[in-house]
Amino acid sequence: MIGNFNGKHILHGNQFTKEDLGQVMKAAGVFEGGLKNGQTYDLMRGRILATLFFEPSTRTRLSFESAMLRLGGGVISVASGATSSAAKGESIGDTARTVSQYADVIVMRHPQIGSAAEAAATATVPVINAGDGAGQHPTQALLDIYTMQKEVGTLDGIRVALLGDLKNGRTVHALVELMALFKVELILVSPPQLQMPAEIVDGLKKKGLSVHQTDDLMQAAAAADVLYVTRIQKERFSDAADYEKLKGSYVIDNHLLEQAKKDLVILHPLPRVDEIAVEVDAHPGAAYFRQTLNGVYVRMALLALVLGRTGEVI
Amino acid sequence: MIGNFNGKHILHGNQFTKEDLGQVMKAAGVFEGGLKNGQTYDLMRGRILATLFFEPSTRTRLSFESAMLRLGGGVISVASGATSSAAKGESIGDTARTVSQYADVIVMRHPQIGSAAEAAATATVPVINAGDGAGQHPTQALLDIYTMQKEVGTLDGIRVALLGDLKNGRTVHALVELMALFKVELILVSPPQLQMPAEIVDGLKKKGLSVHQTDDLMQAAAAADVLYVTRIQKERFSDAADYEKLKGSYVIDNHLLEQAKKDLVILHPLPRVDEIAVEVDAHPGAAYFRQTLNGVYVRMALLALVLGRTGEVI
Amino acid sequence: MIGNFNGKHILHGNQFTKEDLGQVMKAAGVFEGGLKNGQTYDLMRGRILATLFFEPSTRTRLSFESAMLRLGGGVISVASGATSSAAKGESIGDTARTVSQYADVIVMRHPQIGSAAEAAATATVPVINAGDGAGQHPTQALLDIYTMQKEVGTLDGIRVALLGDLKNGRTVHALVELMALFKVELILVSPPQLQMPAEIVDGLKKKGLSVHQTDDLMQAAAAADVLYVTRIQKERFSDAADYEKLKGSYVIDNHLLEQAKKDLVILHPLPRVDEIAVEVDAHPGAAYFRQTLNGVYVRMALLALVLGRTGEVI
Repeated sequence: MIGNFNGKHILHGNQFTKEDLGQVMKAAGVFEGGLKNGQTYDLMRGRILATLFFEPSTRTRLSFESAMLRLGGGVISVASGATSSAAKGESIGDTARTVSQYADVIVMRHPQIGSAAEAAATATVPVINAGDGAGQHPTQALLDIYTMQKEVGTLDGIRVALLGDLKNGRTVHALVELMALFKVELILVSPPQLQMPAEIVDGLKKKGLSVHQTDDLMQAAAAADVLYVTRIQKERFSDAADYEKLKGSYVIDNHLLEQAKKDLVILHPLPRVDEIAVEVDAHPGAAYFRQTLNGVYVRMALLALVLGRTGEVI
Repeated sequence: MIGNFNGKHILHGNQFTKEDLGQVMKAAGVFEGGLKNGQTYDLMRGRILATLFFEPSTRTRLSFESAMLRLGGGVISVASGATSSAAKGESIGDTARTVSQYADVIVMRHPQIGSAAEAAATATVPVINAGDGAGQHPTQALLDIYTMQKEVGTLDGIRVALLGDLKNGRTVHALVELMALFKVELILVSPPQLQMPAEIVDGLKKKGLSVHQTDDLMQAAAAADVLYVTRIQKERFSDAADYEKLKGSYVIDNHLLEQAKKDLVILHPLPRVDEIAVEVDAHPGAAYFRQTLNGVYVRMALLALVLGRTGEVI
Repeated sequence: MIGNFNGKHILHGNQFTKEDLGQVMKAAGVFEGGLKNGQTYDLMRGRILATLFFEPSTRTRLSFESAMLRLGGGVISVASGATSSAAKGESIGDTARTVSQYADVIVMRHPQIGSAAEAAATATVPVINAGDGAGQHPTQALLDIYTMQKEVGTLDGIRVALLGDLKNGRTVHALVELMALFKVELILVSPPQLQMPAEIVDGLKKKGLSVHQTDDLMQAAAAADVLYVTRIQKERFSDAADYEKLKGSYVIDNHLLEQAKKDLVILHPLPRVDEIAVEVDAHPGAAYFRQTLNGVYVRMALLALVLGRTGEVI
């Protein structure tokens, strides 16, 4: 991308240079500061965001809509595929081009990999990918980076343990691509059958990253500065007994945290089910709800950048 | 509660003192006057309401959203549980804490009794209960009180007949709690199998209220200043013939109104099915659509009060 | 109607005089010019549009909501019948009267013919019909007229070919009623079993219109200034083989366009499935996405007119 976001689509984690990231982080920081000081924004007055969620997602949709409203803009929304023209057999391209007539920017989630790029090909306004099946979810990765930088102070030289289903998780795949831009040391913690795909690990190593793979959470937690937890889904196991056996070994609780660094930062893209015990919420390093709030700042930054509306504040 | 609503949750009818009620009524009256004079409000500029309806409700949801927009604020919404993270197994507490990052106030309806209190326990913004199963629906009770006061002029010394399913209706349960703060005389009209639970009746009597129970609508209508009608649901009867027999005896029509006081006020929380004949709509005392509009004023008042945004107008 | 739209319902194509059309077109033109110059509007500040879609429609709903936001107003919405009080057995009349308490104007789509008029009978705010089953969809017809006028320069004396299912399509039925106000020459192209109903054709001829009926698309395309394409739905055929045979003869592609006038204007209410090949999108006369955008201008005009909010700009 390099520099000028105005009019651009946000489709994939690998489209960002380190400078691009810096620009997003800076803008997000300005909006965070502003909102915390009680500032209200009028940057998007008269502008409209369309959220098209062909797959439901409370969290991501509300986060983007909140960001647009905080900027002073308006929102139109399709909250589920069932209420859409897609049911009538319309192509993604036609939907995107049509909705471009109603809105100034489109945020889309769709179960099909590559769907966001397909929408971007015909849309006449910027498209932001909010998850395309097993593909990408770049804004989640950006808010994770923002959160690590804020919680730890830097990304360079820190040790990040990624825990959970590293084989199927689009969130962690996009995240490691962005972390590869920094001198992060990675610890990949997963049961053997859910390891990060070898080609991704090889790619990270080629970029000069230090990557360790293990199935021992205790050891990883003891060494890490940041512990990024994701869910292990029962559906991934052919044998339910295997799942039940594993499940217990990957739960974050106060007992585990006794082994960890005092200032360990714990992240989770949410929603959680039981992979982080509720008792952990009181831990000063439990940053997952702050992470959610950071998502609003980062999405304000992205919306403002792709519509060229940051000039006045940044 | 007593006095200061700023930052408070609205969960239950019994949290209000008579002074609290007075404050809500006063604020609602100011907004009613303002809107009727064509005033537009900017009190909520930059603020966001999240409506979380895990159980659909056109009326209550739209009423709250209308109230927030009339105050100049923005709205994000989950209109049905199916589109939510709840489907992924997230707890109510986590949902509430997450949505607190996106919005300044949360209005929630959920099929489970106690769910609003559960949300309030972790939310970092005010939560307003818009119905928690068989539990409470306090804002409906508040708008009912506001409507009686406006239509009759006072609540003290008036005779209110409550008609319908008094056993299961959360609306009437919350309403009688608030009416107990005034010198209201109550007539409870229902078929024997749908009577108000004895412990509620005893509680009202202990508070000094005059309470009469009857199954004779005609007699009650003749004596009442206000007739509050609710629906009798077929599903409550094990024997369909019992239902059909009863149904006809609890319909408000012009024939019945001939027996009533000339200035009888007729209320209904709506939607109605056939418990009030359409011919009654032309009756000057048919106040149920005005009651709906009053809901917007009362919810404007509540939203403004819990966010501490009334200072400038009240 | 004649002249004063303030407070009026928009229910049926036949309610408009040629002067009314002129007023809508003029207002739409002003808004188009304004938005293209980057103007933002505050005409609807504090006003609320309720979109009630008892039948889902991404396109029409989002178009109206976009129009209202572009005017500076707010939106409350029921995006599908399933989330509504209708499920509890409420009548259309009661719903409309209730929603009148929450909003300043109602846009409604409902599967039942006559439902918009039923809503208008009790509503205390203007109701705009956005499709009532096999009945009417007048705002689509208005935006079609606006688009023809803009694309061709005039409606008088032009030759318009209507293609597809002319028997069942509410869009084309409303459209020909409006075109009858101009000196349009009509070519009706459809398979024999989907011809425009004889009483409509007779009506058009009585109004002095020149009407030709044919099943030969090639010939019609060669003669037309405007080609208005609609979908032929498989469900209309009892014999699937009949459908497959016909389908191919009514597809617009570059081969067909070689036979057409160089400046042929191609319209489609969208969504399309495969009745217009994607290769046609690059044709300068392919105006269907511009038509969609015109829908926003025309709906801004209608909303502003029925709420009496055009005075300042028109």
